[in-house]
Amino acid sequence: MYEPPDALEAPRFTGPRTYARLPYVKSLEGVDCAVFGMPWDGGASFRPGARFGPEGIRSASGMIRTYNEGIGVQVFGALSVIDFGDAPTVPGYIEDTLGRITEFVRPIAAAGVTPIGMGGDHSVTLAELRALAAVHGPLGLVHLDAHTDLWRSYFGRPYSHGTMFRRAIEEGIIEAARVIQAGMHGPLYEEADLAIPAELGVEMIPWRALASLTPEAFADRVRQRLGEGPSFLTFDVDFVDIAFCPGTGTPEVGGPTSFQALSYLRALKGTRFVGFDVVEVSPPYDGPGQVTALFAANMIFDMLGLVALSRRTSIRANADSAPAATGP
Amino acid sequence: MYEPPDALEAPRFTGPRTYARLPYVKSLEGVDCAVFGMPWDGGASFRPGARFGPEGIRSASGMIRTYNEGIGVQVFGALSVIDFGDAPTVPGYIEDTLGRITEFVRPIAAAGVTPIGMGGDHSVTLAELRALAAVHGPLGLVHLDAHTDLWRSYFGRPYSHGTMFRRAIEEGIIEAARVIQAGMHGPLYEEADLAIPAELGVEMIPWRALASLTPEAFADRVRQRLGEGPSFLTFDVDFVDIAFCPGTGTPEVGGPTSFQALSYLRALKGTRFVGFDVVEVSPPYDGPGQVTALFAANMIFDMLGLVALSRRTSIRANADSAPAATGP
Amino acid sequence: MYEPPDALEAPRFTGPRTYARLPYVKSLEGVDCAVFGMPWDGGASFRPGARFGPEGIRSASGMIRTYNEGIGVQVFGALSVIDFGDAPTVPGYIEDTLGRITEFVRPIAAAGVTPIGMGGDHSVTLAELRALAAVHGPLGLVHLDAHTDLWRSYFGRPYSHGTMFRRAIEEGIIEAARVIQAGMHGPLYEEADLAIPAELGVEMIPWRALASLTPEAFADRVRQRLGEGPSFLTFDVDFVDIAFCPGTGTPEVGGPTSFQALSYLRALKGTRFVGFDVVEVSPPYDGPGQVTALFAANMIFDMLGLVALSRRTSIRANADSAPAATGP
Amino acid sequence: MYEPPDALEAPRFTGPRTYARLPYVKSLEGVDCAVFGMPWDGGASFRPGARFGPEGIRSASGMIRTYNEGIGVQVFGALSVIDFGDAPTVPGYIEDTLGRITEFVRPIAAAGVTPIGMGGDHSVTLAELRALAAVHGPLGLVHLDAHTDLWRSYFGRPYSHGTMFRRAIEEGIIEAARVIQAGMHGPLYEEADLAIPAELGVEMIPWRALASLTPEAFADRVRQRLGEGPSFLTFDVDFVDIAFCPGTGTPEVGGPTSFQALSYLRALKGTRFVGFDVVEVSPPYDGPGQVTALFAANMIFDMLGLVALSRRTSIRANADSAPAATGP
Amino acid sequence: MYEPPDALEAPRFTGPRTYARLPYVKSLEGVDCAVFGMPWDGGASFRPGARFGPEGIRSASGMIRTYNEGIGVQVFGALSVIDFGDAPTVPGYIEDTLGRITEFVRPIAAAGVTPIGMGGDHSVTLAELRALAAVHGPLGLVHLDAHTDLWRSYFGRPYSHGTMFRRAIEEGIIEAARVIQAGMHGPLYEEADLAIPAELGVEMIPWRALASLTPEAFADRVRQRLGEGPSFLTFDVDFVDIAFCPGTGTPEVGGPTSFQALSYLRALKGTRFVGFDVVEVSPPYDGPGQVTALFAANMIFDMLGLVALSRRTSIRANADSAPAATGP
Amino acid sequence: MYEPPDALEAPRFTGPRTYARLPYVKSLEGVDCAVFGMPWDGGASFRPGARFGPEGIRSASGMIRTYNEGIGVQVFGALSVIDFGDAPTVPGYIEDTLGRITEFVRPIAAAGVTPIGMGGDHSVTLAELRALAAVHGPLGLVHLDAHTDLWRSYFGRPYSHGTMFRRAIEEGIIEAARVIQAGMHGPLYEEADLAIPAELGVEMIPWRALASLTPEAFADRVRQRLGEGPSFLTFDVDFVDIAFCPGTGTPEVGGPTSFQALSYLRALKGTRFVGFDVVEVSPPYDGPGQVTALFAANMIFDMLGLVALSRRTSIRANADSAPAATGP
Repeated sequence: MYEPPDALEAPRFTGPRTYARLPYVKSLEGVDCAVFGMPWDGGASFRPGARFGPEGIRSASGMIRTYNEGIGVQVFGALSVIDFGDAPTVPGYIEDTLGRITEFVRPIAAAGVTPIGMGGDHSVTLAELRALAAVHGPLGLVHLDAHTDLWRSYFGRPYSHGTMFRRAIEEGIIEAARVIQAGMHGPLYEEADLAIPAELGVEMIPWRALASLTPEAFADRVRQRLGEGPSFLTFDVDFVDIAFCPGTGTPEVGGPTSFQALSYLRALKGTRFVGFDVVEVSPPYDGPGQVTALFAANMIFDMLGLVALSRRTSIRANADSAPAATGP
Repeated sequence: MYEPPDALEAPRFTGPRTYARLPYVKSLEGVDCAVFGMPWDGGASFRPGARFGPEGIRSASGMIRTYNEGIGVQVFGALSVIDFGDAPTVPGYIEDTLGRITEFVRPIAAAGVTPIGMGGDHSVTLAELRALAAVHGPLGLVHLDAHTDLWRSYFGRPYSHGTMFRRAIEEGIIEAARVIQAGMHGPLYEEADLAIPAELGVEMIPWRALASLTPEAFADRVRQRLGEGPSFLTFDVDFVDIAFCPGTGTPEVGGPTSFQALSYLRALKGTRFVGFDVVEVSPPYDGPGQVTALFAANMIFDMLGLVALSRRTSIRANADSAPAATGP
Repeated sequence: MYEPPDALEAPRFTGPRTYARLPYVKSLEGVDCAVFGMPWDGGASFRPGARFGPEGIRSASGMIRTYNEGIGVQVFGALSVIDFGDAPTVPGYIEDTLGRITEFVRPIAAAGVTPIGMGGDHSVTLAELRALAAVHGPLGLVHLDAHTDLWRSYFGRPYSHGTMFRRAIEEGIIEAARVIQAGMHGPLYEEADLAIPAELGVEMIPWRALASLTPEAFADRVRQRLGEGPSFLTFDVDFVDIAFCPGTGTPEVGGPTSFQALSYLRALKGTRFVGFDVVEVSPPYDGPGQVTALFAANMIFDMLGLVALSRRTSIRANADSAPAATGP
Repeated sequence: MYEPPDALEAPRFTGPRTYARLPYVKSLEGVDCAVFGMPWDGGASFRPGARFGPEGIRSASGMIRTYNEGIGVQVFGALSVIDFGDAPTVPGYIEDTLGRITEFVRPIAAAGVTPIGMGGDHSVTLAELRALAAVHGPLGLVHLDAHTDLWRSYFGRPYSHGTMFRRAIEEGIIEAARVIQAGMHGPLYEEADLAIPAELGVEMIPWRALASLTPEAFADRVRQRLGEGPSFLTFDVDFVDIAFCPGTGTPEVGGPTSFQALSYLRALKGTRFVGFDVVEVSPPYDGPGQVTALFAANMIFDMLGLVALSRRTSIRANADSAPAATGP
Repeated sequence: MYEPPDALEAPRFTGPRTYARLPYVKSLEGVDCAVFGMPWDGGASFRPGARFGPEGIRSASGMIRTYNEGIGVQVFGALSVIDFGDAPTVPGYIEDTLGRITEFVRPIAAAGVTPIGMGGDHSVTLAELRALAAVHGPLGLVHLDAHTDLWRSYFGRPYSHGTMFRRAIEEGIIEAARVIQAGMHGPLYEEADLAIPAELGVEMIPWRALASLTPEAFADRVRQRLGEGPSFLTFDVDFVDIAFCPGTGTPEVGGPTSFQALSYLRALKGTRFVGFDVVEVSPPYDGPGQVTALFAANMIFDMLGLVALSRRTSIRANADSAPAATGP
Repeated sequence: MYEPPDALEAPRFTGPRTYARLPYVKSLEGVDCAVFGMPWDGGASFRPGARFGPEGIRSASGMIRTYNEGIGVQVFGALSVIDFGDAPTVPGYIEDTLGRITEFVRPIAAAGVTPIGMGGDHSVTLAELRALAAVHGPLGLVHLDAHTDLWRSYFGRPYSHGTMFRRAIEEGIIEAARVIQAGMHGPLYEEADLAIPAELGVEMIPWRALASLTPEAFADRVRQRLGEGPSFLTFDVDFVDIAFCPGTGTPEVGGPTSFQALSYLRALKGTRFVGFDVVEVSPPYDGPGQVTALFAANMIFDMLGLVALSRRTSIRANADSAPAATGP
């Protein structure tokens, strides 16, 4: 059982930074979840800096403790979690980089360990999806973001942090019919952008529509969309208003608060997620308060909470469905 | 038709910064809207820095695209918009400065081009109003701000960023009966301050009252107040809570979110605005995330959206009212 | 009558910084409220910096004026308020420090002056409670915070910013039955943490429950809990979401906005508070906009508003209950 | 005898900030030197922020102790020094502001107290010179700066931080023949700028010439220039390279280090200075390390050291010249 | 004649930012020098952000005036200089990006205009050299930097900001025999790195050797190395100590001061440079004082000074060598 | 052999941060040097933040490579070096903290591994000295700092970052006769401070004297003072001017450059150091450029260089003194 050291024995600012002060381990045996970094910002169309996203999240994650009060579940001590380190990347070469990240994630996926990636700009999600789809087949996708990231190309080239979900559909690693996007807001390149998700068979809930859904209503739509198949949850921190994520690459104004973001995420209990990521944390733009990194660290802790809950539920379900043979 | 270059051809961080990467043009022919700066902070009673407001907004406005999703209108490509540069100012001499700004705005107003000013501390609005009233006569005013800016004088002198709307009423360039202020919050100099708007014949909706109005209800009150005459819309970024506008001169606590601010602004469709400004952006206090500058850049994009909508409506209205001569 | 100089005579950025530009006075005669600092961060378990909290709040408090519009009461001019300076502290020695702070607060309490403390990490509140309980007997407590601060010990030692309210109960200087905590959110050390308040006889309203209470409903629960006895109000700025308090020691994500915080505080009219503090402002993490310091300065101004209101009420009450002997 | 409290009794980060933790006193009796602020930046031609210069210097001056090791003289305890607060200013009105500063300095000068001003942009020095010349007659001037500040006008107006020494010569409050400037470097408006000092009868040593003078050689030229008459020493922090003064209004590259600056200043023993100032500290540009403010605080401490030395010398001189009555 | 507007008419913080407030012009007729940006950081091996280098330098270059006092030459008014805008780049694709930059520079070179590039990470210099060598043939190179940038490959790939001068030699666009590097300091990957320059036929002067050369001695070695052929001067801001260039990608400790850097550069009069660049300015790491951007803006102004001097010299030389036919 | 991973395989910004990307190892077998952190700032008399010093140094140390060019020695690959993690500390309790650090260092010392500590405020050195003296007996000390840290007490208490070397002498763990301090500058508490080192039998070279010593002359005095016995080298980053160490607790103005600091350190070859530390790095005050942390990371790399050199020398010495028996 891998878990953080006791925070009441030595202060949480002690020791080399890993996610939540977890052990940095390169073996996957006995591991439920592996948190890892993808230090890459070559796909960013505006501000860079996400290559230091994993460092920033690890730094802020010292504040994470062990029990997830928002979801109501014990995380550390219940789940065995490690910090698996960072995928190698190749500055200036996005295609090489995606390849290396896929290689890095493949053994995690193959081992049945739930990967939770720390971006990096959002292009890295394509690499994770490739690794996971190789194991699980085509995936469903919950995509929380200010942007749809379904554009055709940027600057004449296929890969970037604004095009990768179109690529993922083209590659057949996500199923458009099992993709749901929510939170989109901010200026668009043209009116036709609004029609792209539907053209590709994807469900999109812009923020102004999401704003009037309760978390439960939103979760119902998600579950309906994803069905029983394996799915991935990707969270771009620019989903929230820039006041809650100043340290990001393509911030937008007028989005949700972090309280709303947590509420939507926490409602997604009972979905079959085989992987997660939180992307687009750019520490050079975050300011001394580390507002964005701390937010991301907490989103990951909630993803861990969803996993913990689902494992507990399946154990309990197994227990419940066990024959009552041993009675009285 | 002036519009930004294609952001999918070269990245938005390319080239000298103008508002939304628009052409920097000194001719007004064929122009619908002219965005311009008023780099001045000599009227500020607390933090300076607004002289760099236009630079900050231009820098952040790289994130602006062309279609306004919040209002549902194409802006660039539909409107011809330019960056008209900055008015000259005279550090240390507020009266000279106001004079020079008025001279700068006058040809824009005279050409029938809609000016959208980037402050600068709020005292600059007086200069804009003088230029516009010279063309349109006395104006109505929508004033979104944490402060009424109706004080009598500061430090024994008439001009400052806290007194200019009283001056504007005295000069007859705005009509008190067509002025509506909203969003006021924060400590006051004395209880009697609360009575000032009414004494001057101005309608004032403090934030605690506005908070319980829907955007539509607010817009109704605005339209009722302004009537059909030409009006100006001035937006001081300290209208929102300091978390959404850290980079400003006289920030207040407990105000609206940027989501609420956008909602109130977007509801003001169908008002006859002959000019706009966004003021009090002070980059030295904004931090690396440029939260305030990005907010201001988006407010301006929404003002452009209101103009685009009103031009489209009038075109459509003209079309609708065209004789049905060609029908069967 | 001590009050700030006229802000329309000389700018508010003039002169050595005291709270709200109040006179820095070491005598307590003729004083209603004394604002003072406790520059200490030795009890902080994560980020330090709160030793500069009083400097940061004083700096931002230049923005405070005299009339509290949120509460609807004249503060300065009605109350006689001073800046009483800072308690001495002893870096590295928490027990000495608490002792010196108690000594510093004791004469304020003894003089019947209402103390309003500026932290400093939250451990300082223990010192204030010791001084006040020596005068008033065991106190009730309203505790607004993301954390309960009821842990048993940190790193094997009794005093820290996470343990002091358990110590205060053990010392008998607050009455558990008259303690109410609200706003708790964020990860916990273990599930059992949730049960601690109840075990100690303290009422705790987590943020997810508070979020569905109106300010009035909350205030009712507070008044019911505190009864008529003397009480203390302690406000840890991490009560609000980190976007509203980046400059703090142990920030949490997904909390209230500053608008909500002000609303809860303002509803607490009519409670018998004998002292207040605002703690955990850490300027090195606040960024150039001073978001947190300005928030804290305003919370203190609202605490002064509550005092002003209660004094006005008692005067009026006295007036009302005065015998009509002098009539016609 | 006014002096700071003992820094080994309570930490130097304790209490409202005054220069070096000196008492904030409004009486001039028994005072040798009065340190005061001039919070003004309306005369700045590039970056503002110097209105917060006095606050920034006071904040950093907590690091000042009592004995000046560089000069080798006891300052506090030997000299009676106060923080006299700040001159009132009028944002937007440079002429009013200069007038108010002159009024503020006049009683200091009249009382025979040595004033040490904290800027404020450099235009404030004109106001100080007016006050001092009214008492002492025309002054000599040592001017350490990257710029000569002898331009004719800015933007068609006479007063700014680049023109005031020409004004001072015109007004007859400094004697050109007793003015020496040193340290000038950086781009000029035109080649003719180089000739201005000589045209006005002023001696100017550009930085590239100063760089090859020892501090003693420089001091000789200063003493030769100033003679025995009363003189003023004005230090613009942009004298040093921007790495040593990032927080300033018009920074230049390639200047002296702070070690060199201190060396030149310390060499100026034995000059008859009747006043000093340190100007152009702009905290919003200084960064969290407060490099510039700390530098300025130390320059002031060296100015105090020069005063202490000169008073000690005169006492000793008096003693030496006393009749040897007791000798054999 | 293109030159900046008069800085004594409107403040230097007025208008969209171009280098030194020069006109932004896309025609090359009548132009002596074209300053342009290369907003790219995909080749950076540590900190990104250099894509905002051109914006940062333009912002700080408002401080540039017209006469270069360090070199003693009139720049603006004597030379016709424009801001030519930015080369397009392709985030994530270094080879495409280099190609686009070469296309962008080619017409400048072809027109006989001297290009002065603003990086961007150092990999961009390869693209400039390609464009210039196509016009001038193989070039000599003066390379001022903390690093030799002669490594074989990074992460298995040929292009990066640490390998491009080896690529340039391989491509035959610079002549190793006419390459001189100076200023190298800081840790190396291995001892063998020290031998690389010599192996490739390049002269390298590490900082510890340079430190004992006078600027003139250094310039002699440069001139001896370059001979009469066309050469390029590339300046990486990390040549200086990190205190003078905090805003850069791969900073090193213990390097020269900016005063020393300017001295070495200014000594290089009389060399035949056909192009220049200043690279590796990364604004997100520069802090509010813009120390690095201001330094870079001044280095460019000195490069312009070298051009102005050489043009003046050739004109004078032509004049001198003209037949004395017109004499009496 | 422990060493960092190859920086040309995966970027240096990859993976959890340890010093120079070394393995984080808790075993001491086969280890030459152990770098470790002491996250503590409770002893700081002015700015806190040094508890994040180890995190800051580790973050910046990604820039460290393997060959020390300044000293001319291979470090990694030649020495086996680990990151040993951080000592536990107890916020608020300096005596407990010192005890825990001593416990943490003891096994390193006992194993014959050279410890290199990363502070933490300077009080931590007392704990290291206790651990090392227990193994080696009383130590010599080279102390590079702006301050002597020999004061008697602070605020009535014995332990702080200004008193620990007096304590170390009293405890007999350093020998006054083998202590040499250098670099002292800045204001003192009183003139008598100057005499303290001599009173205690310590040699002190103030910065103004050191400035005229060559590194070699300095090193001679050090070697003469230390003799052959085991010694410790402690480096407080405030030894250099604040421009080179903005991120520190008690910065002073007018000190050496980082180039000078490196030169003095590198000259200390051939001294028998049994341990080293670099202290007083406070990241919250360092700004985005991480100037101070990068400086400290390089100082540690030079300390490693001294160790590598001394090991190589002893091997070579052994080889030299080996009998020439095998030669023909």
